[in-house]
Amino acid sequence: MGFTGRAMDWEGRDNAMIKLNFNKMGGLIPAIVQDDKTGDVLMLAFMNKEAWEATLKTGKATYYSRTRQTLWIKGNTSGNVQIVKEIRIDCDDDAVLLKVEQVGGAACHTGHRSCFHKLVEGETAHITGEPVFNPEEVYHK
Amino acid sequence: MGFTGRAMDWEGRDNAMIKLNFNKMGGLIPAIVQDDKTGDVLMLAFMNKEAWEATLKTGKATYYSRTRQTLWIKGNTSGNVQIVKEIRIDCDDDAVLLKVEQVGGAACHTGHRSCFHKLVEGETAHITGEPVFNPEEVYHK
Repeated sequence: MGFTGRAMDWEGRDNAMIKLNFNKMGGLIPAIVQDDKTGDVLMLAFMNKEAWEATLKTGKATYYSRTRQTLWIKGNTSGNVQIVKEIRIDCDDDAVLLKVEQVGGAACHTGHRSCFHKLVEGETAHITGEPVFNPEEVYHK
Repeated sequence: MGFTGRAMDWEGRDNAMIKLNFNKMGGLIPAIVQDDKTGDVLMLAFMNKEAWEATLKTGKATYYSRTRQTLWIKGNTSGNVQIVKEIRIDCDDDAVLLKVEQVGGAACHTGHRSCFHKLVEGETAHITGEPVFNPEEVYHK
């Protein structure tokens, strides 16, 4: 088919049932989390099918913790939950993008707004930005 | 230590040698790709150590194709290379964020600006935006 410029893919579909591919990573898909207002990328996490369904159902970003091997409602400990404003799926259905309202202003356990606060400069990574909370207080360490 | 608000982490370091952790995903790290000007998230790809080093050396985004199991210089076929403007590393050194200038205006093989062009609405995913090129022409299918 030719170039139509219309909002549809090249098979001519413009919407379809959601079919995420969890197989490429052994049951997980990567989820990019972006601040809905600033556009800043806040973090990268992983979802299994259960986390995906919980996110859709509750409207709160829910992930799968590879370290703890459990479902992880983001902010359940710190109070810094993520209210999901928009969800996008990529072209081959193996990654998702969440646009969220980050309660508390910081997504990172270090207190920084974004987990991506290390800027590469030459051979080193330089910490940028200021923490907005003290993790020792938030996590009662 | 107390809350200082300074641009350093809680161990008091403000920069350090880059030590990416490729072990969590069997030699790969996820790379989020963001348009340097618009802030739009363009795609998610993976890097092995060789792809990471090629990206740093050449300034062109280079990934590892899991499907083809080879190094993949993004845009080598389509001409739509990604000029790296900034690189950030996340808090636990297992994911990177590239801010790029997307030559040709589209990152996705479908001709869309972003791979994340499927918007979730209820039970379906709806294609948003208009393709900026015809992949049949670009890839000579």
